[in-house]
Amino acid sequence: MSLLTRTHSRPTIAIFDSGVGGLTVARAVADAVPGANLRYLGDTARLPYGTKSARTVVRYAVQAAALLLEQPADALVVACNTASSCALPELQARWSIPVLGVVEPGARRAVAASKTGHIGVIGTERTVQSRAYHDAIGELDLNVTVDALATPLLVGLAEEGWFDHPVTEAAVRAYFEPWLAQAPDIDTLVLGCTHYPALAAPIGRVASELLGRPVTLVDSATAIAAEMVQLFGQPEGRGAVQILATDELERFARVGGRFFPLESTDMKHVELR
Amino acid sequence: MSLLTRTHSRPTIAIFDSGVGGLTVARAVADAVPGANLRYLGDTARLPYGTKSARTVVRYAVQAAALLLEQPADALVVACNTASSCALPELQARWSIPVLGVVEPGARRAVAASKTGHIGVIGTERTVQSRAYHDAIGELDLNVTVDALATPLLVGLAEEGWFDHPVTEAAVRAYFEPWLAQAPDIDTLVLGCTHYPALAAPIGRVASELLGRPVTLVDSATAIAAEMVQLFGQPEGRGAVQILATDELERFARVGGRFFPLESTDMKHVELR
Repeated sequence: MSLLTRTHSRPTIAIFDSGVGGLTVARAVADAVPGANLRYLGDTARLPYGTKSARTVVRYAVQAAALLLEQPADALVVACNTASSCALPELQARWSIPVLGVVEPGARRAVAASKTGHIGVIGTERTVQSRAYHDAIGELDLNVTVDALATPLLVGLAEEGWFDHPVTEAAVRAYFEPWLAQAPDIDTLVLGCTHYPALAAPIGRVASELLGRPVTLVDSATAIAAEMVQLFGQPEGRGAVQILATDELERFARVGGRFFPLESTDMKHVELR
Repeated sequence: MSLLTRTHSRPTIAIFDSGVGGLTVARAVADAVPGANLRYLGDTARLPYGTKSARTVVRYAVQAAALLLEQPADALVVACNTASSCALPELQARWSIPVLGVVEPGARRAVAASKTGHIGVIGTERTVQSRAYHDAIGELDLNVTVDALATPLLVGLAEEGWFDHPVTEAAVRAYFEPWLAQAPDIDTLVLGCTHYPALAAPIGRVASELLGRPVTLVDSATAIAAEMVQLFGQPEGRGAVQILATDELERFARVGGRFFPLESTDMKHVELR
C-alpha cells in the first residue's frame, strides 16, 4: 500500500463545540471509528453559546470552523446543539466537505424510538427558541408532537461533575414537574445538549417516575457516531487525536477529563478574535 | 448657572460587567447617587468571565473598558468581581480617571464586620484562584484568616431567577457543608460575585444554620456605592442611564430586569471583537 493510499485511507474528522461538552461526541466518534484522525476545537474563551443570540452564535461558529479547517479535514461535525440549531446552513454553504450537526441524527433516533408519537426535547435557551428539533422531527413525521424545554442549569451541573447528585436530581425535578404534567404522553426524551448525557441517570429516573412509565433517552453523540461509520467505514489502526481550545488549557483538561480521556492527548491553545 | 457648569456638575459613572450581574452594582450606585449619569456595559456575547483564564479576562476587560470610555466618563467601576480580581492594575495603568474594582471595598467592609477575625469568601473559579480577596484583606489586617470557595453554579441559579428556591438552598448546602465544617470560626461572608446578592436569603440561612450563629453577609454593591458618594457627593436632579450590551438585548432585558428596572432605559447593542 503506497503512502498516498494509506494517508487517504485515514480520514480526518473535525469536531467543533463551544467548550468541553462536545467531548461526549468526540468520544462516541473515537469509539465508533477508532481509525479516523480527530481534530477537536472547543471555543472555551466564548462559551457558552446556549444563552447567546442566533446572530452571535453564527458568527462564532463560522470563525471556529474556519480555524478548525485551516488544515484539511474530510468532514465537520458540529457537536454543539446550539450551533447545530442556528448555524448549520451557513456552515454548509461555506465549506464543501460534509458538515453534520447533531440535531437531525437525534431527531431521527427519537422518531424511531417513540411509540406514543410524543417526543420531549431538553436543551439550551437558544436551541429551544430555534425550534430546530421541531423542524427536524416535523420533516420526518408530521404526526409526531414535540415539546421542548430549556434547562440551562444542567450545563453547569455537568461541568461541576455533579452527575448523579441530589442537587442535580432536585433541579431536574424542578424543571420537569410542571412541564411533564402538561405533556403526559411523552415516552422519548432527546438530550439536546452535549452536556446532558453525563446526567442521563437522574434525568431518566425523574422523567420515568413523573410519567409513570419507562422513558427512552436519545443522545445525539451515538447517533452522529453511527453516521461517521456510514461515511468512513472502519479504517485500520488507530488515528491521532488533536484538541484545540480558545482559552487556556488548565480548565479544559480538568473539566474535559470528565468526558474524554485527555491524559496523553495533543492539546493546544489557539486564539480566536 | 452656565451650561458648562451644569454639565460639569453631573458626573458620568461608567460601569462594566461581564453580563447582567453588575446591574446589582448599577442599582446600588443609582440609588446612592441618583444625580449621576450611568453608562453600563455588559459583555454578554462573551460571558461568563468567571470560568476563563486570567489572560483572557484581562484582554476582554481592556476591550470592554475601551469601548465604554469612547465617550468621556468621570470614573470607571469594574462591577465584575472576576475582572476586578485579574484586570484592575492593567485598567488603572491605561486610563487616568479613577478606576475602582469591587474587591477592595468588599474586603474593607468584611474586615470591619468580623469579630472572630475569620472571613469567608465565595466567588467564581477565577476570582478564588486569583486570591484577590486574600491579598486585599491581608493588606488591611494581617491577623485575619480568609477562606475562599468557588461556587460557580450560583450564577446560573440567580440568572434562572431561582432566588429563594429549594434547588438553590440544596446547592448552597452542598457547597457549604464540607467547607464550613473546616472553618467553624467564620462569622462574615463576602458575596464575591455580582450575582450572589440576589441569593442572599438562602446563603445567609444555610451558613447561619451550619455555623450555629448569625453570619454577616458583605455585598460589594453597597460598598462601591458608598465610594461613589465620597467621590461625587450628591449632584442635584436625576441623571440618565444608558446600557450597552455586546450580545442582542432580548435576553439582557429579560434576565437583567430581575436586577434593575429596565422598562424605560436607553439600551443599545454594540459589537466587540
